[in-house]
Amino acid sequence: MGYLKFKVEALESFCLDAFVKFGFTDEESRIITDVLLLSDLYGIESHGMQRLVRYHKTIAKGMVKVDAKPEVVFETPITAVIDANDGMGQLAGHKAMKIAIEKAKTAGVGIVSVRNSNHYGIAGYYAKMACDEGLMGFSCTNSEAIMVPTNGRLAMIGSNPIAVMMPAEPYPFLFDASTTVVTRGKLEMYNKSGKPLPEGWALDKDGHASTDAPDVLKNIVAKNGGGIMPLGGNEEVNGSHKGYGWGMVCEIFASILSMGMTSNKCMQGTKGGICHGFMAINPAFFGDAEAIKSHLSKYLEELRESPKAEGAERIYTHGEKEIYAIADRKENGISVNENTYREMADMAQYLGMDIEKYFGKVELSESNTMFGNNY
Amino acid sequence: MGYLKFKVEALESFCLDAFVKFGFTDEESRIITDVLLLSDLYGIESHGMQRLVRYHKTIAKGMVKVDAKPEVVFETPITAVIDANDGMGQLAGHKAMKIAIEKAKTAGVGIVSVRNSNHYGIAGYYAKMACDEGLMGFSCTNSEAIMVPTNGRLAMIGSNPIAVMMPAEPYPFLFDASTTVVTRGKLEMYNKSGKPLPEGWALDKDGHASTDAPDVLKNIVAKNGGGIMPLGGNEEVNGSHKGYGWGMVCEIFASILSMGMTSNKCMQGTKGGICHGFMAINPAFFGDAEAIKSHLSKYLEELRESPKAEGAERIYTHGEKEIYAIADRKENGISVNENTYREMADMAQYLGMDIEKYFGKVELSESNTMFGNNY
Repeated sequence: MGYLKFKVEALESFCLDAFVKFGFTDEESRIITDVLLLSDLYGIESHGMQRLVRYHKTIAKGMVKVDAKPEVVFETPITAVIDANDGMGQLAGHKAMKIAIEKAKTAGVGIVSVRNSNHYGIAGYYAKMACDEGLMGFSCTNSEAIMVPTNGRLAMIGSNPIAVMMPAEPYPFLFDASTTVVTRGKLEMYNKSGKPLPEGWALDKDGHASTDAPDVLKNIVAKNGGGIMPLGGNEEVNGSHKGYGWGMVCEIFASILSMGMTSNKCMQGTKGGICHGFMAINPAFFGDAEAIKSHLSKYLEELRESPKAEGAERIYTHGEKEIYAIADRKENGISVNENTYREMADMAQYLGMDIEKYFGKVELSESNTMFGNNY
Repeated sequence: MGYLKFKVEALESFCLDAFVKFGFTDEESRIITDVLLLSDLYGIESHGMQRLVRYHKTIAKGMVKVDAKPEVVFETPITAVIDANDGMGQLAGHKAMKIAIEKAKTAGVGIVSVRNSNHYGIAGYYAKMACDEGLMGFSCTNSEAIMVPTNGRLAMIGSNPIAVMMPAEPYPFLFDASTTVVTRGKLEMYNKSGKPLPEGWALDKDGHASTDAPDVLKNIVAKNGGGIMPLGGNEEVNGSHKGYGWGMVCEIFASILSMGMTSNKCMQGTKGGICHGFMAINPAFFGDAEAIKSHLSKYLEELRESPKAEGAERIYTHGEKEIYAIADRKENGISVNENTYREMADMAQYLGMDIEKYFGKVELSESNTMFGNNY
């Protein structure tokens, strides 16, 4: 599977123009593009350009409504509930976190829960919006069910990522992770390369541990049973119930407080129904915000400087790898999988855009078999 | 290792009298006893009577100050910071959650961070205080460092449990779990029974995976290196960085916002320095609290009723096992490890109490070797 490399600016122009072509306003196209690009800049390939096909298909089939505007349906000085009206998740997410930030600035905390939305990109983008304003940011989303609860054999919970970000020097603490062991994108990568899955990732249709990537993916797509294990695996001895519990915490902030669809109901027919949760907390409401920031910075440094395991080179703190990734991508460009490029070309054709205008003439190696996505 | 069985009321009387003997007021003794008993009622043996020896020793050496009163040192309508002044963790925790609940009732959310405290028992007790009032409860605590960060070989983070509880029918959602794979108590149980540890729990002094319980515990006590893995193990492939990240989220709510001691500084010399975090969120600030409760209840039922893995009997939702445990303990009494009973007898002697008054004449089998605790 080959990779192409493009300049950040080329991808940015392509996305901006594409979303305008889909019918979004300039401002909306800017938000959606920013979320996608941040993911690729962070090195999270699964949520960057790779997601364009999903947006293309869900817009085309009417699951994502281009002219929908997210609407505040309930509000207090520190909380809000937003109905995304089946629009793009990034637009609901951006509006929700803006509201949470405003509330946190004046009241100390803002919590916003969103229903009837769609895929919103990386959770970390919204946590970063708060962190950029000096606040602690929290963001989570449910998704199509992929996590099998402990002792189960049917996916009932989403990958349900939760991101928490907090200002620190020389870079913030940014923890952004699915509550499953891995996301489906990782299974797809192993499948494409023909390798068996690592132990402790996935379950077959009967609920037994499996390392057979094609079989697991086939069953997930057909909803035959099986799926991905919670963080901690599929047995309580290694904490399966803990990953399952964190998935549920995400669900509470996203689908429960908003009275939206729980993951087991999302993405059926032409309804997305995805729900998100956002929180911003103002450290100044606990004392001296600068002192709190220094206190965290010191601990993060102590962690990085602590003794390494024999054979390990360094200890990372959360958010550090992303800092290096951004510097690298801005300097050297963003790697795009050839299959992703094919999807982008397909989308350009659908929108009547000339993709060569953005990326020049591109040579592709032979196509790989891919599993169909079920949207 | 033998077990004894005692009635809940006998243990309750013993604890109440013991804490009064230590010098706590009747009301304080009631709070401490309630926290301990709830743990044993829930079936969490590690945090019930088994902890009495820790309280005995930390009070005796002056780490826990009996006459300390937790003090609000910073406050806004939705936040507070409490200095526990080196008192019992349960007293600071109870006061902090009471304040968080009051704020959540009037303002929608209450967040309280506590510094300079000591061991506070199970995190779930405080989350339950909020849930009993119809609120979502969140509680976390740092502890003496026991979690080794990904790629490290020295424990730098506590077991850092986080509890989240939310009203539901027929029983609430209660997720209460350390952010390590397991807690030290589990290692001690394996050690006592002479069994090797399960794979994926612990690290030796060089940071390599180890199943040698006596060696791991020896190194933990001597602070030679090694400790317990984060939830997800010690390698990123199975999500080690995720458990490590959750441990850090606990640290932010507990030690960072309160400007208290991070886990790597706690429990050194005669200073406990433990920090806690509490949050109460009022569902009525998101709409119809009863409808939200029903919505969660329905999802929990769908999870319990979903297809089981081949060979599995049932799927639990979080908090369900505790409901069965309470009914059993109230009916059949609480099991107490013989070594724990020996520690209770030792404490009774220290306090000049006649332990037979509470439990009658008890026959003990031969003593087992135990690893010393390092307080």
